[in-house]
Amino acid sequence: MLTKITGGITAPQGFKAAGVHAGIKKNGIEDIGIIYSTVPTAAAAKFTTNKMVAAPVLVSREAVSQGKVRAIVVNSGCANACTGNQGLTDARTMAHKTAELLNLNDYEVLVASTGVIGVPLPMDKVTAGISQAAAALSENGYEAMLSAIMTTDTFPKSCAYEFTLGGKPCKIAGIAKGAGMIHPNMATMLSFITTDVAIAPDLLNQALSQAVELSYNMISVDGDTSTNDTVAVLANGQAGNKLIAAAGSQDYQEFYSALQTVCTELAQLVVRDGEGATKFLEINVTGAAHFADAKCAAMAIAKSPLVKTAFFGQDPNWGRILCAVGYSGAKTQLDKTSLAIGDLTIVVDGHGVAGFETAKLKEIMAAKDIAITVNLGQGEAAATVWTCDFSYEYVKINGEYTT
Amino acid sequence: MLTKITGGITAPQGFKAAGVHAGIKKNGIEDIGIIYSTVPTAAAAKFTTNKMVAAPVLVSREAVSQGKVRAIVVNSGCANACTGNQGLTDARTMAHKTAELLNLNDYEVLVASTGVIGVPLPMDKVTAGISQAAAALSENGYEAMLSAIMTTDTFPKSCAYEFTLGGKPCKIAGIAKGAGMIHPNMATMLSFITTDVAIAPDLLNQALSQAVELSYNMISVDGDTSTNDTVAVLANGQAGNKLIAAAGSQDYQEFYSALQTVCTELAQLVVRDGEGATKFLEINVTGAAHFADAKCAAMAIAKSPLVKTAFFGQDPNWGRILCAVGYSGAKTQLDKTSLAIGDLTIVVDGHGVAGFETAKLKEIMAAKDIAITVNLGQGEAAATVWTCDFSYEYVKINGEYTT
Repeated sequence: MLTKITGGITAPQGFKAAGVHAGIKKNGIEDIGIIYSTVPTAAAAKFTTNKMVAAPVLVSREAVSQGKVRAIVVNSGCANACTGNQGLTDARTMAHKTAELLNLNDYEVLVASTGVIGVPLPMDKVTAGISQAAAALSENGYEAMLSAIMTTDTFPKSCAYEFTLGGKPCKIAGIAKGAGMIHPNMATMLSFITTDVAIAPDLLNQALSQAVELSYNMISVDGDTSTNDTVAVLANGQAGNKLIAAAGSQDYQEFYSALQTVCTELAQLVVRDGEGATKFLEINVTGAAHFADAKCAAMAIAKSPLVKTAFFGQDPNWGRILCAVGYSGAKTQLDKTSLAIGDLTIVVDGHGVAGFETAKLKEIMAAKDIAITVNLGQGEAAATVWTCDFSYEYVKINGEYTT
Repeated sequence: MLTKITGGITAPQGFKAAGVHAGIKKNGIEDIGIIYSTVPTAAAAKFTTNKMVAAPVLVSREAVSQGKVRAIVVNSGCANACTGNQGLTDARTMAHKTAELLNLNDYEVLVASTGVIGVPLPMDKVTAGISQAAAALSENGYEAMLSAIMTTDTFPKSCAYEFTLGGKPCKIAGIAKGAGMIHPNMATMLSFITTDVAIAPDLLNQALSQAVELSYNMISVDGDTSTNDTVAVLANGQAGNKLIAAAGSQDYQEFYSALQTVCTELAQLVVRDGEGATKFLEINVTGAAHFADAKCAAMAIAKSPLVKTAFFGQDPNWGRILCAVGYSGAKTQLDKTSLAIGDLTIVVDGHGVAGFETAKLKEIMAAKDIAITVNLGQGEAAATVWTCDFSYEYVKINGEYTT
């Protein structure tokens, strides 16, 4: 049983956070943040699959391979990507400076950056900011930390839950940032999760892999996968539960379920805050031969600019949905395919249902949240993807990002 | 030597055309067209790879397999896609009606449709229109025919050339329509090419395959591949040249070069008329290990909404270009990658050139035609893709298409 609680990422015991304005972002809001566990942790993280990987990801991959990350240092306003050797040195300096201040080893610090690509970090501001943030670490610093990871986000994304394992109260909490370059494999998505559960590092990694696959990897805002994506979880065992050491155990299942809930909630918040988004679209593909088919058909719909602009314009041009399924690469046959928008069946066996109520469809499309369901008629596998529409505002935000 | 001529698709000898308003489109302009060769032809055609293939494509695939198409009948305003068995019957009726009027076999007629998906054809209007168009066929009907294939196109797309084979003057001409759902494998792209050259059917097919691969399959407006794409060429031999019967011959090479020129010119016109386009972007990827890598990297750039909106906004956010290359799947390493926009080098060995002139870059991005060149540093293969930017107008056109 999960209960929603307040307190953000410092709600789990033994975590502190801070966020400060170091002057990297021009708008005066926080741009350097630190999350810190006062005790050793098990840690796991997943990173972007983009080959043009940013310097902080290279540094963090190394750190996480030791499984002992206790601090996360992050800046917004500059992605430190495509910055060559200098960028790598700068990312290492961020880790080292943080480690020094918190009396940790460099490999106990994970580094993340988000913002414009191709610009070097202003390291004097960054190191000063890290000093300031380290000094400010507290159990009340989670809101400032949350501000420090935001770029074009229009609202902070955070959630926290309590549950019990063997009678011990446990907590898990997470934060995330969007809001552009969001596509499977985590896009310019940063997400950090804290929990006071005691869990073996390999099981934590296994749980995170599965939870990411069904949450962050099932969302798309614009089809662009960024250079900096990072999702990390720190588990410090302060809840005092019996160490979760077997994947088949009831405790593992309950922890996984909590982690999955946090990841899905944050992933959906990222989509709701997609750049310029006016609609939240849930795309269900059922009746697929395999999960991979269901996911690729759902993703093709989610990525189609024609589908996304039609939903923005509330234009009942449903043929574009089947069209996207047709080029997705999924195993599919037109005459076995059906489509519903909301609870209205539009297509059966590949052709439009004669005389379906256009007025009803327009009413469904006028809502903010819309479900699209495609049944491929090929098997039993299914996948759900979340996306948003494409609006004038998306074009505006992304035509003027650096200027 | 190719010389540009006037006269459109009826410039080659032995071709007639007509276009009439049958009432399928609401705006009173032509919506049924016919192209007709007065003598037998060799014919070849390529169709969409979308699995949700439209009824006219199913019918035309059968017809073209005989290689003797003499007439093309096309309607705009309704795609006759996702229309089930009735759609298939309707497409066959269009072919049969045309064949009857022109005293042909059904398999000598190619059928094409473009417009909204999922709506049945108003067959009474269609058959009346076909009768009217067949009666109106003439050597001056090419402009009306060209109007009849347009949907959201803002200008007609046509070109015609003369060249000589063995001293005989030969002509080749083509028309095309765009302008949304344009992506490799020909999208909602209809293109019809006429020539009076005498060529063996298998060689005509070979030439068309290669020309399409390097023209229509190298453009992207929005990443959506449609249900109805068709490009067809009819060669009726009326120029009196010696039959082209060997792929290695000089005559074949000259014909191929003319065909390639027509296809590339029309494909580029389709991009220039991309829905809402304000920029024409030529994306060159060089230094690739294989053509497939070069093409997939170029296509990832061409499809990226973040790149396309940045060019619309003239925002020098070049990191998005490398980011797209990074997730494209092409073999690539950041530290071997270079990037130029226009003649300005921006990135060398994966990192931004220190102090490149931002003012110069903004000047380049202010132009209507912009070349982007990425060198992957992996090998000798290259590919060029053409695309356009993403504007407010794209969102507007596609949010209001059917309403």
